[in-house]
Amino acid sequence: MGLATAVFLAKKGRPVHVVEKNPQIVENLPKGSLHFHEPTLRKHLETTVKSGQLTIGLPEAAPFQDNALIFIAIDSVVQDLWKMRLSSFEQMAQWLGQRKTRHKRTVILKSTNILGFADAFRELLWKQPHGKTLSLAVNPEFLREGFAYEDTESPWRVVIGAEKPAERRALVDLYREVYPKNVPIVKTTCKEAELIKLGSNVYLSHRLAFIHELADYARQAGLDIDRVRQGIGLDERVGQGYFNPGLGFGGSCLPKDCNLINSRELDNTFEFKTAQTALEINQRLLDGLVSRLEHAVGQLQDKKIALLGAAFKADLDDTRGSQAVNLALKLAEKGAQVVVFDPFIDGAYLPGAEAIPLADTVDEACHDASAVVIGTAHSRFRRLSAKTLSGLVRNKVIVDYFRILNQPRWQKAGFTFA
Amino acid sequence: MGLATAVFLAKKGRPVHVVEKNPQIVENLPKGSLHFHEPTLRKHLETTVKSGQLTIGLPEAAPFQDNALIFIAIDSVVQDLWKMRLSSFEQMAQWLGQRKTRHKRTVILKSTNILGFADAFRELLWKQPHGKTLSLAVNPEFLREGFAYEDTESPWRVVIGAEKPAERRALVDLYREVYPKNVPIVKTTCKEAELIKLGSNVYLSHRLAFIHELADYARQAGLDIDRVRQGIGLDERVGQGYFNPGLGFGGSCLPKDCNLINSRELDNTFEFKTAQTALEINQRLLDGLVSRLEHAVGQLQDKKIALLGAAFKADLDDTRGSQAVNLALKLAEKGAQVVVFDPFIDGAYLPGAEAIPLADTVDEACHDASAVVIGTAHSRFRRLSAKTLSGLVRNKVIVDYFRILNQPRWQKAGFTFA
Repeated sequence: MGLATAVFLAKKGRPVHVVEKNPQIVENLPKGSLHFHEPTLRKHLETTVKSGQLTIGLPEAAPFQDNALIFIAIDSVVQDLWKMRLSSFEQMAQWLGQRKTRHKRTVILKSTNILGFADAFRELLWKQPHGKTLSLAVNPEFLREGFAYEDTESPWRVVIGAEKPAERRALVDLYREVYPKNVPIVKTTCKEAELIKLGSNVYLSHRLAFIHELADYARQAGLDIDRVRQGIGLDERVGQGYFNPGLGFGGSCLPKDCNLINSRELDNTFEFKTAQTALEINQRLLDGLVSRLEHAVGQLQDKKIALLGAAFKADLDDTRGSQAVNLALKLAEKGAQVVVFDPFIDGAYLPGAEAIPLADTVDEACHDASAVVIGTAHSRFRRLSAKTLSGLVRNKVIVDYFRILNQPRWQKAGFTFA
Repeated sequence: MGLATAVFLAKKGRPVHVVEKNPQIVENLPKGSLHFHEPTLRKHLETTVKSGQLTIGLPEAAPFQDNALIFIAIDSVVQDLWKMRLSSFEQMAQWLGQRKTRHKRTVILKSTNILGFADAFRELLWKQPHGKTLSLAVNPEFLREGFAYEDTESPWRVVIGAEKPAERRALVDLYREVYPKNVPIVKTTCKEAELIKLGSNVYLSHRLAFIHELADYARQAGLDIDRVRQGIGLDERVGQGYFNPGLGFGGSCLPKDCNLINSRELDNTFEFKTAQTALEINQRLLDGLVSRLEHAVGQLQDKKIALLGAAFKADLDDTRGSQAVNLALKLAEKGAQVVVFDPFIDGAYLPGAEAIPLADTVDEACHDASAVVIGTAHSRFRRLSAKTLSGLVRNKVIVDYFRILNQPRWQKAGFTFA
């Protein structure tokens, strides 16, 4: 996300220097090598590095820049614990506030924060010798994974939180120059900007949780979720987009923000029920799936289960917050021998679940399996062959909550959909 | 809702006979007198009655019509208990199944049902001497109050549930003739149609519950909900419509369907958490409002509270499922003397809460009040005068969750917004 901002601003003719702690990234980025899947971003990274518009270096080598905009895009939250990386922010505050500045520098929080965090960070800044000379603004990112550059270049809106208009002026001026006039700039307080970011993701989580809850009901009652979904989504107040059931919602943002909005790290005591409910629906869906598997194949202890796909989103390699990974862990807890195949993920073990082996092929994963579960709706899984799998598995039991398989064809080949 | 269908089909040239039990309605309807506020419907009612295309009569006088489509649009649910009016449906089944039919007649359930109710009603029909000669279809209505005719004429979609294609054929043929080609007809099973109806309203309830929960948080944290709402709604996956906070969601459909989807009257055991959460958020909002009032004016015992507006929706007279009425009852429980004024409602007492008096004017309601609460965002309340009210009330405390008042102006006049 930080890089998308950097490359976009460089592309728009602003000199950008990226400060990065990891020496490997500092070495590899200028060669155009990205450690994540963002094709458009990679393309523009190469151009802007070549043109010299974008440079990158370690913090020690960072030039002190008077009159600059400083975007903070560090990984702000400890995964799974949903706690702010406070020590990182303390270091950051020290680093920023140690030098005297002649012209106003603006510090911009782009990372996701818990509610009230910008105010807490301001206090950290103000403790530094020259911290009070810095302006602070909150400018949350709203990027879809895989489209980081596209969404940075053409946002639905830009949100800039600050305590006083003067604190966000430099950033507003910059954005007015680089964005077309039809991109709305929403000016708020810091805390409002934080709520917009978290609230947006809670809303989206809840929309997905609803369609998953509906699908769960439909499955239990033997109804066709696609027809039901269409019947509801045709209401224009509901809409059909972002309304596909699968294993639940995942990724590095939605589950995280459903947790963060209810963080008790600062003085927040409000209980966001929508966020809580969305997480509960996600959880129940997996519990229900495990029950259905047990119903179909008996106790899972020592049974091999093939999980096809582990990424949280189709055709990506990112397993952060993935429901497929959560499912793998749940099945392993039941004593099942889970074997995962994901065409986008290399290695011997599942990232985020090191006890679970990764197979190199679909066939290897499915060989002798008591059940096959579609974990991610990767496009290539649509072309799985019921005939081939028939000859490999121990039981012809399959789970496809994404509905990417042609059910009648698989049923004809003897498979039962659990 | 039944009348909207009747008038629309009559307008499209089909002969329609309305069967109505209430003699007063039978007498008044042909004169164009409606007991609810639907301006367009009233206009077309007059035309179709005059032209003889639409007739109305008591059940005893109903002509037996072979080869007919029979729409059931009775009030299907006992208000507040959320139970199906089973005895009405038993009578209906008897009435329908007693006569032999030469040509296929189709019975169409338009009323809202709990999940599986159509299947239960089919069993009732089949117990009748000639019940099995009837076709049964479920064709839920999706009408916005105040726009019943418009939404019947130009629906976003038509949903027709039936067990076999033959059972819905007559209805599909009719709708293909009366609707333009671009209106999608979604063909489902009976239970899927029921789920589409309930699920749509649960989804809409939850969308409204989310914006109310967000507003509750914003109020507690002193944030501007309008800016936050805009920042979130500008995401095109979220949208800005149907996203206005107030006292919660109400009306005769949304709270009802959030309850009905979790009905245990038939064999459903699934817990729809989204529905439950939406109802809880509605409830918490009112509890919070009462606390804020107590904080502002002290114990409510014997204090006069003016409630301006009792309808569930702006510029309508319908108090069914109204959060303003729920609030009035909550305040009365606390011992407050609640006085309600609603320009659209006549009478001495609040419909649905007969212990609570209705005032004839804003001034009468507000005279000597310890607090004034906006209960409904009726347009005319936007023009309330802070100056006039200043001279009437005991405490200048006002609650406006709808944000229809100009807060700075009212604050200048000495009012505190609780």
